[in-house]
Amino acid sequence: MQRIGATLWPTLQTFQVYGANTNVGKTIVSTILCKAFRERQKAKVNYLKPVSTGAIEHADGRHISKFIDGVNTETIFQFSKPISPHLAARFEGHVPEDFEILEKTYDRLLQSAKRGDDVSIVETAGGVLSPAPSGNLQADLYRPLRLPVLFVGDFHLGGIGSTISGYESLKLRGYDVLLHLIFEEDEYQNVKYLESYFDERGVPTLALPKPPAPKKNPEEDMENMWNYYSEVTSLDMVYKVLDKLKSGHTNRITELDSMAERAHKQIWYPFTQHSNLKPKDILVIDSAYKNNFDTLVKNEKSKSESLLRAAVDGSASWWTQGLGHGNPELSLAAAYAAGRYGHVMFAGAIHEPALKITEALLEGHNNSRLDRVFFSDNGSTGMEVALKMALRASCDRYGWNHKTDDVKVLGLQGSYHGDTMGVMDSSEPSIYNDKVEWYRPKGFWFPTPQIHMTGPQKYTITFPSELKSYLTSETEAYATKGFARALPEIFQKERFSSTLYEQYTSYIRDTLKRLNAEGTKFGALLLEPILLGAGGMIFVDPVFHAALVNLVRNEPELVNSAAPRTTGSKEWSGVPVIHDEVFAGLHRLGPFNTNDLTHVMPDIVVNAKLLTGGLLPLCTTMAGQSIFKSFEGEDKTSALLHGHSYTAHAVGCQVAITSLETMQKKPWAQYAASENDQLWCVWEDDLVGKVAAHKRVEGVIALGTVLAVTLKAEAGKGGYNSTAAAGVQAQLAQVGEKGWMIHSRVLGNVMYFMSGLVVSKRTTDAVLNELLKALDG
Amino acid sequence: MQRIGATLWPTLQTFQVYGANTNVGKTIVSTILCKAFRERQKAKVNYLKPVSTGAIEHADGRHISKFIDGVNTETIFQFSKPISPHLAARFEGHVPEDFEILEKTYDRLLQSAKRGDDVSIVETAGGVLSPAPSGNLQADLYRPLRLPVLFVGDFHLGGIGSTISGYESLKLRGYDVLLHLIFEEDEYQNVKYLESYFDERGVPTLALPKPPAPKKNPEEDMENMWNYYSEVTSLDMVYKVLDKLKSGHTNRITELDSMAERAHKQIWYPFTQHSNLKPKDILVIDSAYKNNFDTLVKNEKSKSESLLRAAVDGSASWWTQGLGHGNPELSLAAAYAAGRYGHVMFAGAIHEPALKITEALLEGHNNSRLDRVFFSDNGSTGMEVALKMALRASCDRYGWNHKTDDVKVLGLQGSYHGDTMGVMDSSEPSIYNDKVEWYRPKGFWFPTPQIHMTGPQKYTITFPSELKSYLTSETEAYATKGFARALPEIFQKERFSSTLYEQYTSYIRDTLKRLNAEGTKFGALLLEPILLGAGGMIFVDPVFHAALVNLVRNEPELVNSAAPRTTGSKEWSGVPVIHDEVFAGLHRLGPFNTNDLTHVMPDIVVNAKLLTGGLLPLCTTMAGQSIFKSFEGEDKTSALLHGHSYTAHAVGCQVAITSLETMQKKPWAQYAASENDQLWCVWEDDLVGKVAAHKRVEGVIALGTVLAVTLKAEAGKGGYNSTAAAGVQAQLAQVGEKGWMIHSRVLGNVMYFMSGLVVSKRTTDAVLNELLKALDG
Repeated sequence: MQRIGATLWPTLQTFQVYGANTNVGKTIVSTILCKAFRERQKAKVNYLKPVSTGAIEHADGRHISKFIDGVNTETIFQFSKPISPHLAARFEGHVPEDFEILEKTYDRLLQSAKRGDDVSIVETAGGVLSPAPSGNLQADLYRPLRLPVLFVGDFHLGGIGSTISGYESLKLRGYDVLLHLIFEEDEYQNVKYLESYFDERGVPTLALPKPPAPKKNPEEDMENMWNYYSEVTSLDMVYKVLDKLKSGHTNRITELDSMAERAHKQIWYPFTQHSNLKPKDILVIDSAYKNNFDTLVKNEKSKSESLLRAAVDGSASWWTQGLGHGNPELSLAAAYAAGRYGHVMFAGAIHEPALKITEALLEGHNNSRLDRVFFSDNGSTGMEVALKMALRASCDRYGWNHKTDDVKVLGLQGSYHGDTMGVMDSSEPSIYNDKVEWYRPKGFWFPTPQIHMTGPQKYTITFPSELKSYLTSETEAYATKGFARALPEIFQKERFSSTLYEQYTSYIRDTLKRLNAEGTKFGALLLEPILLGAGGMIFVDPVFHAALVNLVRNEPELVNSAAPRTTGSKEWSGVPVIHDEVFAGLHRLGPFNTNDLTHVMPDIVVNAKLLTGGLLPLCTTMAGQSIFKSFEGEDKTSALLHGHSYTAHAVGCQVAITSLETMQKKPWAQYAASENDQLWCVWEDDLVGKVAAHKRVEGVIALGTVLAVTLKAEAGKGGYNSTAAAGVQAQLAQVGEKGWMIHSRVLGNVMYFMSGLVVSKRTTDAVLNELLKALDG
Repeated sequence: MQRIGATLWPTLQTFQVYGANTNVGKTIVSTILCKAFRERQKAKVNYLKPVSTGAIEHADGRHISKFIDGVNTETIFQFSKPISPHLAARFEGHVPEDFEILEKTYDRLLQSAKRGDDVSIVETAGGVLSPAPSGNLQADLYRPLRLPVLFVGDFHLGGIGSTISGYESLKLRGYDVLLHLIFEEDEYQNVKYLESYFDERGVPTLALPKPPAPKKNPEEDMENMWNYYSEVTSLDMVYKVLDKLKSGHTNRITELDSMAERAHKQIWYPFTQHSNLKPKDILVIDSAYKNNFDTLVKNEKSKSESLLRAAVDGSASWWTQGLGHGNPELSLAAAYAAGRYGHVMFAGAIHEPALKITEALLEGHNNSRLDRVFFSDNGSTGMEVALKMALRASCDRYGWNHKTDDVKVLGLQGSYHGDTMGVMDSSEPSIYNDKVEWYRPKGFWFPTPQIHMTGPQKYTITFPSELKSYLTSETEAYATKGFARALPEIFQKERFSSTLYEQYTSYIRDTLKRLNAEGTKFGALLLEPILLGAGGMIFVDPVFHAALVNLVRNEPELVNSAAPRTTGSKEWSGVPVIHDEVFAGLHRLGPFNTNDLTHVMPDIVVNAKLLTGGLLPLCTTMAGQSIFKSFEGEDKTSALLHGHSYTAHAVGCQVAITSLETMQKKPWAQYAASENDQLWCVWEDDLVGKVAAHKRVEGVIALGTVLAVTLKAEAGKGGYNSTAAAGVQAQLAQVGEKGWMIHSRVLGNVMYFMSGLVVSKRTTDAVLNELLKALDG
């Protein structure tokens, strides 16, 4: 399998010729360029027209061959009717898929590089956004290649506007325009205007003499054009532009080559031990598209090998990616909000994107305990807000003095809620906070029963030692014989009133009684539902989660002897229950939220990461009246005095709306299991089973877009300090025969892979197969 | 003075007709619409062509009058040459400014509303981005009005692409397209494609029969067109579309009307006591442009009064705004990065926008103590990072045990560094943190000498009582007689070795000695240079700032008896000095950073807010090797384990690059004082002097884009709880006679006004004059 992405060869220059409109002279410009490259730089030139419409005798490749010797020309798809390709293709009854066109174009470029060509020019059909045969927009079709653009401006009346609009359409798809070419025309003087416009944006203009008007006599026409081409290509400015393109190509490579060194010297990386980081370890990302990065590959000695290669973004860019890198709809949504508002201050104000995303989230969560949305910038700040909310509500109800009483939180071992110090204090001591100067743990954290797939169709539970005395031989056997054969069984309603549920409850009750007897005050229950991400992709038995929440609510006196028994589906009871769904929410694990997996409704929920489809920081903390009322009062200092400058920034909110709307269309429907369309998984069950059964693997979890593989750790080197996964990770990062690689992240002995919500089976199967190979060593 | 912004009348519908290109039939479409509104809805119709080129007898207004009776038509600027307006205007020797065209268009719409018209149609010239007479792009010229768009698609070959590109250009300027209109054309079938394209985006299409080909005989032509218009306007679908537009207009008003109520119910506002918040207090922002919001005004009873009014964004949207709301360059920069990358994970990776902004910041700060950049999402998280850096460096050097030793910070009274709990702990107890459950103050905070302009050309210093015994009668008199007459004097080098400097130093030395004797351990000195923003725009004497930093560095044993005397311009000494320039940096107060104002170079500096020109959250924390090395080691847990998912997100970095580049062009040069171009101020000195001399005013500060006015507080009601400013604020928020208002924020008895970096004197003078009026009561 081949993965198509951007390419960059040491000597072969590749260009894509886009026109501001149809009939702006793309082919003539291409001919001039081919001829000039050929004759003035003595370059080996390749010309490619992936899609052409109109009679074959007028095809652009033929035109070029008529005027220049020794240029390799090819048209891949030729349709005879001189109309838009999407109509022409249908008319002829053969509609090539985008992928087919893309793959063939990519192939021809590879061949051109292998032949040792110096220049490959790919000419498009029509204007920038003219439809491809499939009906998709041409600039979207070719985007994975992100070829440097030679942009032919429009010299007609109205051409200034259409040229700039075309340029904007290219930019918002992440294209780089290297050169603007346009024919001189005296009356409208578009050249003068556009030259200055592009100059301000660092794009040089090559103004070309207008070609002679076509003649009826083909011979005369031929001669005129012959003379024209000879004259134009002999112009000094043409030669200078070719030179500039060539040095631009070299500079781009030099620039890319220097990036890792410069980053190594000047950037302080997050979560990175710099002593272990060498420049060669830094991934240079030229661009990204859908589930791929386009990355610089080093140590490629051959000039016919591309310096850029596709790397599967195996961590979904730190768990953020949802709707694909370089998504043009999100790009336009961001631009629209930037154009309509920029950022407008939010305290005491409202704008449409903030209100719409608020209502969409309230509707999506469909939880009577939630009726308000608070905005912040990331999961960590959103969890700080959640904590402030819960602690205030508890102090308020229980009459604690927050300045003198030590109010703590309840949570799970292995949980992680972010990097700001307040939320750090709400996680148990771990390597993440061990060396943080002001870290002072404030809570009690339960050990958790953990689920793994340990073989094909076999799910087992690993029980913590504290729980074992509560189990019967029947439930104890879940650890070895397994308890479920498929994902849906894990979340079945029946399990949530089973013997195991009762056993979990007994253990939790005893623990809470002990803590209460010790006088510990608890002000919140913080939970990452289902998967504890940073803790090592720990899959906590949802039945344990439910037992904990239900107990705290149904027997609140376990938390605080004076607690009233509140009832109903709105009022919090015992302690406010916070779901940190920053990672697990918004379809990362399948459903919109985890409530149908845990069968529990939280009092506070935090969303981030996927909220913007994977584009921008934005976070929401949602809560209900029973929490909110604790901040009401005459005194303005009783309010929730939290709020970042860019709170509810319009760009983030608008992108979030577009993302949620796209998600509602369930782009992952192809994976939906028939009985429960919430429990889809992009990782193919049989292949996952093979991984689970592998001798180096302890267990696997595949859920939604997440695949977590726990490797057997080396003796005495478990957890975050383990290096068991490093070898596998390094092998996946090799380009090797296949020509592409997989960028993955590890958490100690846990390797994980995560895709966007939209991904092809082709991709996920390839990742699984490569993983199996790498495990074999 | 009039402020031009978006308008929305209860009954008058306004539209702007944009074309995907020239020659797509804008005038014919406008005629059809005018005729249909006139004849089928019996509407009073106004047609406006602000700029027209070509012979007057063919002018669009005349065309309309020929075919419809009773439509008020007007062409504002007519140029006879049928070419682009920017050429035609030059040709005739009269080039109207954008503002002139805009103002006249706005005026005509006001008149139309006053006349009681039902519909006003404004037709543009050429395509979406055709140049206006000034040479600026037409869609930028009209953007302040943000009229709902009727978009005429291109039916020619290539028209699909040009139509979608034109649409994208409109969207990225924040326009809303209500309707797509296009002529039917069989061969290219653009209608079919575009209808479905726009339908997916919620924009209906009105496909119109193609008009008859023009005839040579004008009478025949007239008759053909007459028949065409009669036929088309009698079509049911046309009528239905008009109906849809009308209900769309009503719905938009209903929607806007409901927004405050819905927000009040569903949003949890930052820094807001909801008990005091009523729906009517919530500012409904329809859109924003440059220094203005377009806001909904309530209680307007007259149908000829616009429901939307311009409000000056007087807080620069919570101190973020720099390059104007709705800035199309920033919008395109955001879109480009979204299209090229989306977001790509940053740990161990590098991409061009992150590297470029890193290098631009290192170069901009030009401080040998800084050689690395760490990214986070907002000032609060960036200050958490700064704290973690400084505390680690101190613990490392002094061998403190961070788990048992209480390491504290030094700072200033009135400082504020953000809302996350870690940085809250680094500020002194105040109303901001008084009720935060986990707040535990960790530091010592110096009282500060504060500067005010207390009358024209008179700056005084208010000394805290602790300092008074150190002053001589000469320096004590600075409090009454003043010490400077103009801003540059305050920052003059001489002051930084003056008697006062020595007196400050003595006070600080004695204080530090005492603290050291008490055994307090200090791990960082945190300073908001020059202006303590949230603390109430406190202007701390920069000489005090310098004395504090220099003393800590030159006599490090004052902080820790065991401290080595480090020297040089790279190694920190005593404690790492953190400049929190989240608010004050990046030209907010004039210069790029505050180093030339305080004459001090920090060891760590934090930037945010203006970093993206006011568009998006992004924060950088910069430090140097002498801090960085404390995080190096074999153990990965020694690393700075901090990093948000969207760390160094490409969109933010790209926007930041564009912003910094724009800022480097010094768009505020118009204000630059001749002797020191860093000390510019957008607030006119004479008017500021008048404010300072006002009887209700205690003192004023005007610096860069900031104007802070301290009002005399009511007895016993100082600080954040004061309501002295509320009345003035409320008066400024009135629309009144002038038709626009000022949105401002107050901090207790301090009112402040802040503009973007680019603002007209017209605007700032108007704000000052309105302020003077409001103070008069």
